[in-house]
Amino acid sequence: MELLATTLSFAGEHRRYRHRSAVLGCDMEFAVYLPPQVLAPGAAPAPVLYWLSGLTCNDQNFMQKAGAHRRAAELGMAIVCPDTSPRGLDLPGEDDSYDFGSGAGFYLNAHREPWAAHYHMYDYVVTELPGLLEAEGLVSHRRAISGHSMGGHGALVCALKNPGRYASVSAFAPICHPSACPWGEKAFRGYLGDDVEAWAEWDATLLVPAAIERLPLLIDQGLADNFLEEQLHPKALLSACQKADHPIELRMQSGYDHSYFFIASFIDEHLDHHGEALGL
Amino acid sequence: MELLATTLSFAGEHRRYRHRSAVLGCDMEFAVYLPPQVLAPGAAPAPVLYWLSGLTCNDQNFMQKAGAHRRAAELGMAIVCPDTSPRGLDLPGEDDSYDFGSGAGFYLNAHREPWAAHYHMYDYVVTELPGLLEAEGLVSHRRAISGHSMGGHGALVCALKNPGRYASVSAFAPICHPSACPWGEKAFRGYLGDDVEAWAEWDATLLVPAAIERLPLLIDQGLADNFLEEQLHPKALLSACQKADHPIELRMQSGYDHSYFFIASFIDEHLDHHGEALGL
Repeated sequence: MELLATTLSFAGEHRRYRHRSAVLGCDMEFAVYLPPQVLAPGAAPAPVLYWLSGLTCNDQNFMQKAGAHRRAAELGMAIVCPDTSPRGLDLPGEDDSYDFGSGAGFYLNAHREPWAAHYHMYDYVVTELPGLLEAEGLVSHRRAISGHSMGGHGALVCALKNPGRYASVSAFAPICHPSACPWGEKAFRGYLGDDVEAWAEWDATLLVPAAIERLPLLIDQGLADNFLEEQLHPKALLSACQKADHPIELRMQSGYDHSYFFIASFIDEHLDHHGEALGL
Repeated sequence: MELLATTLSFAGEHRRYRHRSAVLGCDMEFAVYLPPQVLAPGAAPAPVLYWLSGLTCNDQNFMQKAGAHRRAAELGMAIVCPDTSPRGLDLPGEDDSYDFGSGAGFYLNAHREPWAAHYHMYDYVVTELPGLLEAEGLVSHRRAISGHSMGGHGALVCALKNPGRYASVSAFAPICHPSACPWGEKAFRGYLGDDVEAWAEWDATLLVPAAIERLPLLIDQGLADNFLEEQLHPKALLSACQKADHPIELRMQSGYDHSYFFIASFIDEHLDHHGEALGL
């Protein structure tokens, strides 16, 4: 793990690292926010929120635009922002679309060539990166997860597939039912192939009926979001939760769009939600 | 004034506009944050903070990265972010440097060709843009001013040269004595010519002795700022204030650098300072 930069922020540290990812087969960069409480000598590592970003993003968008450091510093919560896809692989077509390939890893494990050897963002964000950070003592084993858009899909799927791994989960404007929207269909067909049944294990709406842990899903969705009708389908997820009696708090926020201004407006409430679950 | 976009943020509106600037002779874009209090029908326009950004920035950096909307919404304060230079003029050499020409207007009125016909950012931010916004009823006549780096220089100069115009002034890591640092010397020689005496009216440290209004200068400066020693010279300004008995609160912040993480860490305190002066 190579430390690229450390910047003081709200008396905590925003750090960027580079490391070699075994599951992705490439060098990856990520960002960590460490609250002031853990900078004291001998302090224990902090409970941590993993934030998964959306299409075209990298590890920096959330750190720079969400305004999350202030409340995280108050709570004593670490935040980890992974990148959104493998980088620098030069696979054919990798950089041709904003919604497939680089910047659009979709937090799944690809089966289809040429992606199968590298595009394992699910294993990376659920297992490899937390394992590395916990072994280094940078963050604790008490984990929460959240994300935006493609990253909201990722957060919901990671939580639903891993009972006991996360204390809490939330999402902003998540792609709730990717099997049934253009972004998700393109990604799933490309990474997973044409067998639609194989898509179900990466679709929050289809995972809810079999979820064995009743972790409440906190979701904020702007009603002025241009992607709401075609891509996001929160009502499909709501309906699946109601049928399965799975706890969900879906808040439709009048006037808000898909931008980081929307995320910033409600991030403190999400941090408080995770802080409470993490015992902060 | 053409409205380019409106985005809800903390129940207020972040708006971007384009207009034809008479003093600059080009189209300009700027951003306004309107707090929720002024969105009600018949509400009076809000007191306003003018924020001047630094080298290479435009109207968006502060709005996206400073985390200022939350506290501005609570206070009922509008924020206006102008761009940092004229745009789209295609003057020879305009885009050759990060610290001169486009993105580096230095908030002065240029005398030297080819800049003299357009580079009047001082008149633009002090007179033309506020006049437009006040005439439109978008913001009130109660004004405060702040900025970062080159924009911190701009804020100090605008306040010192215009007694009675601003209720308060503050700056983050301002270029305090531009006549005596590489950034300032390059800009002043290019825009104003070789007569060093003509530079004094655009240099906060040199304006303080003759200031007829004793508006306190609130300045935050990070001690880990890479530009501190060579470019910023806060001690020269402090010394000038002490000699002239001009009120200044210069806070040297241990560990902070020149980035927006530094600004975000202390922006609430600056907004509270301006809010108090504006009667909010």
